[in-house]
Amino acid sequence: MNREKLIKRIRERKTFLCVGLDTDVSKIPQGVSPLEFNKAIIDATREHCVAYKPNLAFYEAMGIEGWELLQETVSYIGNEHFTIADAKRGDIGNTSTQYAKAFFEKLNFDSITVAPYMGRDSVEPFLQFKNKWAIVLALTSNAGAFDFQLEQGAGYRLYEKVLKEVSSWGTPENTMFVVGATKAEWLKDIRAIIPDHFLLVPGVGAQGGSLEEVVKYGMNNDVGLLINASRSIQYASNSPEDYATAAKAEAARIHEQMKIFL
Amino acid sequence: MNREKLIKRIRERKTFLCVGLDTDVSKIPQGVSPLEFNKAIIDATREHCVAYKPNLAFYEAMGIEGWELLQETVSYIGNEHFTIADAKRGDIGNTSTQYAKAFFEKLNFDSITVAPYMGRDSVEPFLQFKNKWAIVLALTSNAGAFDFQLEQGAGYRLYEKVLKEVSSWGTPENTMFVVGATKAEWLKDIRAIIPDHFLLVPGVGAQGGSLEEVVKYGMNNDVGLLINASRSIQYASNSPEDYATAAKAEAARIHEQMKIFL
Repeated sequence: MNREKLIKRIRERKTFLCVGLDTDVSKIPQGVSPLEFNKAIIDATREHCVAYKPNLAFYEAMGIEGWELLQETVSYIGNEHFTIADAKRGDIGNTSTQYAKAFFEKLNFDSITVAPYMGRDSVEPFLQFKNKWAIVLALTSNAGAFDFQLEQGAGYRLYEKVLKEVSSWGTPENTMFVVGATKAEWLKDIRAIIPDHFLLVPGVGAQGGSLEEVVKYGMNNDVGLLINASRSIQYASNSPEDYATAAKAEAARIHEQMKIFL
Repeated sequence: MNREKLIKRIRERKTFLCVGLDTDVSKIPQGVSPLEFNKAIIDATREHCVAYKPNLAFYEAMGIEGWELLQETVSYIGNEHFTIADAKRGDIGNTSTQYAKAFFEKLNFDSITVAPYMGRDSVEPFLQFKNKWAIVLALTSNAGAFDFQLEQGAGYRLYEKVLKEVSSWGTPENTMFVVGATKAEWLKDIRAIIPDHFLLVPGVGAQGGSLEEVVKYGMNNDVGLLINASRSIQYASNSPEDYATAAKAEAARIHEQMKIFL
């Protein structure tokens, strides 16, 4: 999906919600299969979101069955939602090319999350595919973000250097950044470096973080935000009777908040 | 495999070679299946190495078949060699735990390569499994290593900070570091920070880099080195008749060089 279509979907549906699919076999309601669960969550939330983000770790932990589940899930999502493989990949050039093939060609994802530590040749292979995206980690929402991402270099912090460098390798048509919502006020500084890029914002919901603050400091003329919620939607209820209804209610609640800003 | 057994294997076989399994369907000899190829490479190199390192990207690029190939390959390697999932994973705590389960429990790897960008809670879950290892990226051997890893902070470079911090989270019994061989003289500074840890050194062979230099600056009393060669062994010949013989010859050549230092 290209940028124009993504923005159109956001405007039409009046939502910039991304639903995370962290499908954990130990958390889904008893008697419900992982595929059945994913399909129910997707059907319950389609009208309330513009993107889905399966978290690869949860699928890999299931082995081959997980890889099958992932394929079937992406295929079930279809072409009307932006799809994000939350895989945090990144390796030397020839290896990143293989990862790009895996996620863009084999699995047909629109985008993949990428770790920047190995530099330019680890990111560029993901930028060579038409209408596909690299979503590069800049400032994450976990406690460990403070260990290296805030390292002070010559006049900038490491995550600011990542924003500056990586944004020069691609364009706002093929690159987004992960920016955690737990530090919403920093979005002002981030927008000074990358005014046009879309930001994928985790950490609204289970990880805490205010939607209003994120919009205030992070929204641009093209909206420029995808706000992710995973556990708060997927596990809104653990009853096999009402988990889909509960997921829908939580997605609808966030959707209503988002409508105000669009 | 624990540290004691790894060192014992190195001393017995007089080798610290790790054979990379970057199994690329476009490069393996015609008429040879990927599994047949991996088995032949493993059998040809068993006596010359102490470790095998499948590169996950190449397996993921094959989809479900690749995941099956990976399972069968790890199982074929057996318990007498140290196994490394070269996967460069790393995410928030609950997600890294899922990756650890995927590679340590489902696939039974001894170790996994981990990207440090997301900090402590992204690495620690990999250190909670008995006799399993996190091999954390510090200074890689690609051109992009210069983009962020050499960033000058307050008195140290980013990769030095990674060595200092990460080595305090685990021990030399469950943590190793990836250090590229293209800058062998820097190993002296690295050994000043982490005298005891094992280093996984890519970049000897196809990526250029001298074994002698790496040994000179990087070896410690427990050897402390795993030197990886992938393409130079796997693709020593592309003929279906002699690729295994050629792989064996190249592995034996490196083995002979290593014997001098042990």
